[in-house]
Parts: sequence; structure tokens; C-alpha cells
Amino acid sequence: MSKEVGITVSKNDNFSEWYTQVVIKTELVDYAPVKGLIVLRPDGYSIWESIKESLDKKLKETGHRNGFLPVLIPESLLAKEKEHFEGLNPEVFWVTQSGNSEIGDRLALRPTSETLAYSLFSKWIRSWRDLPLKINFWNSALRAEIKGTKPFLRTSEFLWQEGHTVHATKDEAEKEVADILELYKKTIEEELAVPVITGKKSEKDKFVGAVYTDTLESLMPDGKALQMGTSHFLGQNFSKPFDVKYLDENNVETFAWQTSWGVSWRLIGGMIMIHGDDKGLVLPPKVAPIQVVIIPIYYSNDEKENVLQTACQIKDSLSNNDIRVHLDDREQLTPGFKFNDWEMKGIPIRIEIGPKDIAKNQAVLVRRHNQTKTSIEMDSLTEKISSELKNIQKEMFDAAKKILDERVVKISQYQQFKEELDNGKMIDCSWCGNQTCEDKIKEETGADLRVIPSNNTKAETCIYCKNSGTTNVLFARGY
Amino acid sequence: MSKEVGITVSKNDNFSEWYTQVVIKTELVDYAPVKGLIVLRPDGYSIWESIKESLDKKLKETGHRNGFLPVLIPESLLAKEKEHFEGLNPEVFWVTQSGNSEIGDRLALRPTSETLAYSLFSKWIRSWRDLPLKINFWNSALRAEIKGTKPFLRTSEFLWQEGHTVHATKDEAEKEVADILELYKKTIEEELAVPVITGKKSEKDKFVGAVYTDTLESLMPDGKALQMGTSHFLGQNFSKPFDVKYLDENNVETFAWQTSWGVSWRLIGGMIMIHGDDKGLVLPPKVAPIQVVIIPIYYSNDEKENVLQTACQIKDSLSNNDIRVHLDDREQLTPGFKFNDWEMKGIPIRIEIGPKDIAKNQAVLVRRHNQTKTSIEMDSLTEKISSELKNIQKEMFDAAKKILDERVVKISQYQQFKEELDNGKMIDCSWCGNQTCEDKIKEETGADLRVIPSNNTKAETCIYCKNSGTTNVLFARGY
Repeated sequence: MSKEVGITVSKNDNFSEWYTQVVIKTELVDYAPVKGLIVLRPDGYSIWESIKESLDKKLKETGHRNGFLPVLIPESLLAKEKEHFEGLNPEVFWVTQSGNSEIGDRLALRPTSETLAYSLFSKWIRSWRDLPLKINFWNSALRAEIKGTKPFLRTSEFLWQEGHTVHATKDEAEKEVADILELYKKTIEEELAVPVITGKKSEKDKFVGAVYTDTLESLMPDGKALQMGTSHFLGQNFSKPFDVKYLDENNVETFAWQTSWGVSWRLIGGMIMIHGDDKGLVLPPKVAPIQVVIIPIYYSNDEKENVLQTACQIKDSLSNNDIRVHLDDREQLTPGFKFNDWEMKGIPIRIEIGPKDIAKNQAVLVRRHNQTKTSIEMDSLTEKISSELKNIQKEMFDAAKKILDERVVKISQYQQFKEELDNGKMIDCSWCGNQTCEDKIKEETGADLRVIPSNNTKAETCIYCKNSGTTNVLFARGY
Repeated sequence: MSKEVGITVSKNDNFSEWYTQVVIKTELVDYAPVKGLIVLRPDGYSIWESIKESLDKKLKETGHRNGFLPVLIPESLLAKEKEHFEGLNPEVFWVTQSGNSEIGDRLALRPTSETLAYSLFSKWIRSWRDLPLKINFWNSALRAEIKGTKPFLRTSEFLWQEGHTVHATKDEAEKEVADILELYKKTIEEELAVPVITGKKSEKDKFVGAVYTDTLESLMPDGKALQMGTSHFLGQNFSKPFDVKYLDENNVETFAWQTSWGVSWRLIGGMIMIHGDDKGLVLPPKVAPIQVVIIPIYYSNDEKENVLQTACQIKDSLSNNDIRVHLDDREQLTPGFKFNDWEMKGIPIRIEIGPKDIAKNQAVLVRRHNQTKTSIEMDSLTEKISSELKNIQKEMFDAAKKILDERVVKISQYQQFKEELDNGKMIDCSWCGNQTCEDKIKEETGADLRVIPSNNTKAETCIYCKNSGTTNVLFARGY
């Protein structure tokens, strides 16, 4: 493969350029003609489909149902929950014309659907019988990005799901917030092999409309934290202005308790950064559009026929066992070119099959994530590959988890703070709970309070002000 | 059920009002705060998910893959294919502001994605190896509706899929157009139990950018035809302005041949109109969110326990056999109320189970589509219901097909034309091929040439001008 075709920078040398080359050259995405917007090509969309399928199944099993909301929201409605609206305002795309006519009340392109959904919920909900209401929307959100475009991480339109639930009691709503966080964690760790740390956002970084925000944070190889998803307890902050209330069993009118939560295609960006290497993508088997690629190796026409026949048999056998397999029978390309091509695309397993392998009734299996090579018996090939795919998924997660654990460092002296950040670490320390300290740390080191972990240990004195600490927290620079 | 809750007009007396009541009262849809826009509630979205799942599977089996395109298209790009653009212009929503800034080149909300997709295809396609390219997008399209909102049929944003393919040869592209038409027909007839007539649109009614447009037409109970989907042969009409070309096997640069095709949630509207009755929805089993509802019947607490236990057993058994089943165990509601409620919602099968049934080791099965009632043995209940669901699907299609066949009338005298239209018929007649006659007929009767059927029989003299006819065609008034 020529230098132009493959990835031309190393992940360590220029992480940002490496990332861009990987997502573009492996044909996951392309840029759209409007700044800030991207297109998903089939391999990129296929990864989103896998995430969606897995999460959608879990949501349905827990009683959530999908719906559809239009992308246009009138300005008057968006402005109804003022605090929430002001944060979004600079990012909103406005429709002001339809055909050749001006529109009176400007229409916002959905930055998020709380206001629209809750104006409807207030009509739909009458009594306790209608609760809980648990609806999810697979759609896209639009928020104008003024900084440079970064596929999956910073785009003006992004694919996501937004869930919105309404409950009769505070406890039930809080349980939903926690259940969703668990369900997200399971999806991200099991499907994308990306380990996450769960907990709460600080008051400063919570969703403006929420009472509190639960978050899932992961740490990228450049030492920056990436927020992978959020689950908000909205309390009655929206139910009051939007009149979402119900008649309880005693016929008393009561304001409902609400939650909202979402994950976006940003998950794909995190997965690429965590697992990719200098050769390109490394895809976890569960989300790989192709899990196994078969490369036939032959040097004469006689050999070709025999090799292709065996390759086809392997392909059929894998395919019949629900393994996503591709036979690369392109003519005029060398096996070496094909190896590089599929390695760049991150396909988890490569099977090489040539005349010598056939003579020995075996094939060669090469794993993308750790570059190891094994010979496998033809007779047990399908079972062996099935179990290898499971092993690879687990090994990729375990390796990423080990790195994450090593990179979260506990410190008690503020002098060490910046140095450890510069080493690409996430800082585990104590914090007094005052935003002043949080702001000062941000100002002096560039780090945000990413998460107040759920498995909170007893805290010592605040890393910044030395007053007695109320909680231990994680700081890092962020995306 | 009180008059207010149920459907209060008859389908024959006021078809339009009946339709609106059905879609709103059965909680399929609701109106959004912006005129022309609707929301899909879970039962409505679930029908769309069934259609999507069935069609998506067929598309993937035939080598199509999904992608994502942003909703915003720059005006300059939209204007590149002028003819195509002029037709759409009055319906386009324009984004002119982002946050508080004005945008230079206005951004259109996707009315359809030909221009955006093909500007990308021209970058992606280099050689014959890259062909065919067969990509599909499940998204929504936005076209400002000035006439009144009609859920599923006339809305300013609608869910659809748009497929776009590129081929090396004209023949291959034309085969794709025909294959997609078949695949649509199969989906519409087998999933929605709606019979369609396939064929070509006239020059006047084809998609402006196409060489020709294949269509699927169905006939609604009010005598109006509904276009259920289209498949366009684009020839090289777009590949030339958008520079979609490839190097062939002899290294010669060649313009590619293209197709585009789509179906929308309009399919759901057609299905509701065809099958619904005075009591409300009648859903074909394959797309019904709930296929079987179980109503327990008891008059004392002793009976209740026993009946609910049996009802639960039935539910579990059906559920384990992948039947979508719901046990309506709501307290304080009479069985009669529940019967009406689920009939309005169109659930294909109702199972009634009471102490007498249990004593006889049987249950009562009531079919929604033809209101028939049978006793079924408890021991074979699951198998019986599985086969009943298949029967119902088939019977619903057969009944609709019989009606369609009866309502297409062959005439040769123009005097009969308007009279038969007024009887709610679709007119099968000969046509000379001149648009003048087509226009005159439209002017005098309000009917459009809906389709030039594929199974074209030899034609006689033109119904209008009496010149020798070139083809036989179907006219009807349309939605």
C-alpha cells in the first residue's frame, strides 16, 4: 500500500491528524459541503447501526418505546424554559423562510427536544394510569459548531438518541436515571470495549435544566476526557412550566417527575481513539461491519481454483453461523496489499488460505488487535473463530481498562496536579464542593471536574483550598 | 365507551373526518405546534418500525447499505440541477441564521438528497471497481405544505427512505429500478396487505430529474388514487452535471447511470384508509404493535385469581412464540369497555377468557377484520393463534385485492369517464400518448393519468381524441 493510501502519521506523534486520516481514509465519514457537517458512509453508519440495535433492544426490554418528533420547534416554545434556552441560543439554526415567504415566529432546528416533547406530554398525560411514560427518539440534533469540524466529536448535526420519561414519584424518576446510566455503561463497555467511569457532574457542568446530571466519562490516549453520555434527573423543573401533571389515585392533581438522557455518535469517536493504532482502525468484533476477512493466496491458475473453492466453503460456513464475513477475491491485487487494506479498516480477524494450508488441512488466523498469528484446523474453524471473536472483544476491553486504571492517579498535593495532567493523567483528588475552587483549577490548569464517581471513597482536605473535603472527584482536560 | 372516546363519524358519511379521528384517537399521531407538522406516538412509530425492518432486510439482502446525510444543503448545490430545483423551490424551508449571525449562502432543509449525494458520489467513485454503489438513507424530508395538514399524507416533514444507486451500464441501472419496484410491491402487499398496481408515470407526472419514473398506485375507498412509492431511472441526467464518472476496464472515463427511489410513511396512511372501519383501525397482523390482546372476564375475587392465572399462562405461551401479546388487566374497567378500546385500536385478535371458558378448557377468539368469533381449545391455542394471524393477513389482502379489481373499470367511451370517476372508480382506457389529451381529461374530469401499467395490453383508439391509441393506461383522481 502506498504512503498516500495508508495512514501517514503516527498516533503518538500527531494524534489529531492521525484521527482525521483514520476516519476519512477508512471511509467511515466524509465532509459535507457545509462547514461543520459530515456524512456517514456505509462502514461508518454500520457501526452506528450496531450500537443502535444493541441499545434499542435494551431500552425496549425495559419498557421504553420509540416515537418521532419533527425537527422544527417554534422559538416561542423553546423560550418557555428560559435558563435552558439561553445556553443553547448561540448554537441554534433558525428557519426564517419557507419558499419565498418570511415566517413570523422563527423555527429552531432541534437542538434537543425537551420543550417540544413536554408540551405534548402535558396533553397526553391525564391520570396515574398514563404513567410511567417512557419514550425514546432516534434522531439527530443540530447545534452550530464554531470551532473546527472533528468527525463524531464536533459537528453541527449529530446522530443521537434522546430519551424522555415521566414518573409519578421522585424515587421512580431517580431510579430511571440510574438504570439508564447502567444500561449505557453496559452498551459502551460490552459493545465498544471502551471502559467508562460513572458518577455525577458538578453543579457547574450539569445540564442547565436538570436537578442533577449523571455522566459516563472515558479517557482518550491524548489525556483528554470524553463525556460518553448523560442521564438527567429533571425533577419538576420542566413539569411545572410545561404543566406536566396527573391525577393521582386520590384524584389529586400532582406535578410529575421527569428524566431525559442521551448518547450520540460521539461513542464511535471515542472507540476509534481508544483502540486505533498507527496502521488505522482496530474495531471490536461486536460493532465491526465485517468481522472476518478471508484472503486467498495463490500463484497459478491451478492453485487459484482450488484455493477459491476452499475460501468459499469457509465463507459459507462462517456466514451460516451469523459471522459477518467477506471474501476478498479482487483480482490484480497482491495479498500484501489486501492485508494492509483490511488492517487499516480494522477488521478483527484475517484468515489467510493458500495451497500449503489446504495441504495441511488448516488456515492461518491473524488477529488485528494484537497482531498475533495462529494456525487453525479446518475442521474446527468455525467454532474456533466464533470463540476468537468473543476473546478479542474481551481482550480489547481488558487492555483498555488496564490503561484507564493506570492513568487515573490519586494525588493530594496541588503542585503535582498540572504535572500529572501534562503526563496525560486523570486526577483523582478531594474537593470541598465550592465552585470557586473548581473555577480556579480550570483557570490554572485547564482541567474540568469531569465526574464525582459513584463509588465515592471518603475524602480528605480539598486539593485547592485545603478546607475539609466533602467528596473525592476526578479532574481532567476535556474534549 | 362514550361517544367522545370512540370514532363518532362513519367512514362512508365523512371519510376525511373519519380518517382524522382514527389517527388521533387511536394515539398513532398528534399535531406538533407548527402547522403542517405531526408527531408519531409509540403505536404510530411502531408501525413505521415494522415497515422499516422488513424493507431494510430486503435492501440489505440485495446488496444495499445505509448511510447518513445531513439535513442542511447549501442553496448553491441545490440550484446546480436547475429543472429539478425549480419544482421544489416553493416548498423549501430556508435556514438563514445561526445563533445571532446571518448565513451567507442560505441552507435548505433537505427536500430530497439527490444533489448532495451525487456531489459526494463524484468524489467517491474512481473506477469500475467502485460500482455498483447502492446506498440508502432512512431519514426525513421537508417540504412546506400550504394545504391543510393530513397525518401521513400531507405534512411538511415526513419520514421516508431515499435510495441512490450508481451503475456502470444503462441496463444494470434499469434493472435496479425494476427490482426496487418489485421489492416495494412485495413489502406493501405482504406487510400492509394493500394491493398495488405497478407501472410507469407519464412524462407529465414523472420526477422532473428522471428519464422515467416507475410507480406503485393504490386506490382508496373514496375513489382517489394514492401513489405508494416511486423508483426513478435517472439515466445520466445527474451524472453529467455532478460529474459522476468512472474509469472503465479499458481506462476510459465514462459517465455513470443512476437511480433513486423512495417510500414514505404515506404507506401507513394508505393502509389505514384501506382497512379501517366505523369502529376505527383494522391493523394487518404483520405491522400491528400488538397482535393479540387478552381480556380476562370475572365477576368475583375468586374467579379473578383463577382467570388471571390462566390469562398469564396464555400470555407467556404466546410471547414465547414471538407473538406480540398484551394482557389487559386494568382494574375498574368493564370487559365491554376494553373490547371497544382494542377494537378502535385495530388489534387483529382478541382472546376472551372467563370461568366458563376455563371449565371447558377453551377460550374465545374474536377476529377484528371480519368480527368473527370462535372457541378454541386451550391445548392447541398457541399454534391456532399463530396460524390465525397468517390467515388474517392473507384474508385482509385478498379482500382488498377483490375490491381493487372491482373498482378498476375498462371503458372506451369518454361519456362514461366522469360518471365512473364519480362512482369512485379507476378508469382503464386507451391513450394516444399526447399530453394534450392528458391535460384535457384532467381539466374536464379532475383525473390524472396515474399509471401506465406494466402488464400493458394492446390498446385501442384514444379515449379522448379517438386517434389510434398507443397504450392502455389508468386514470383516477388523486391525493
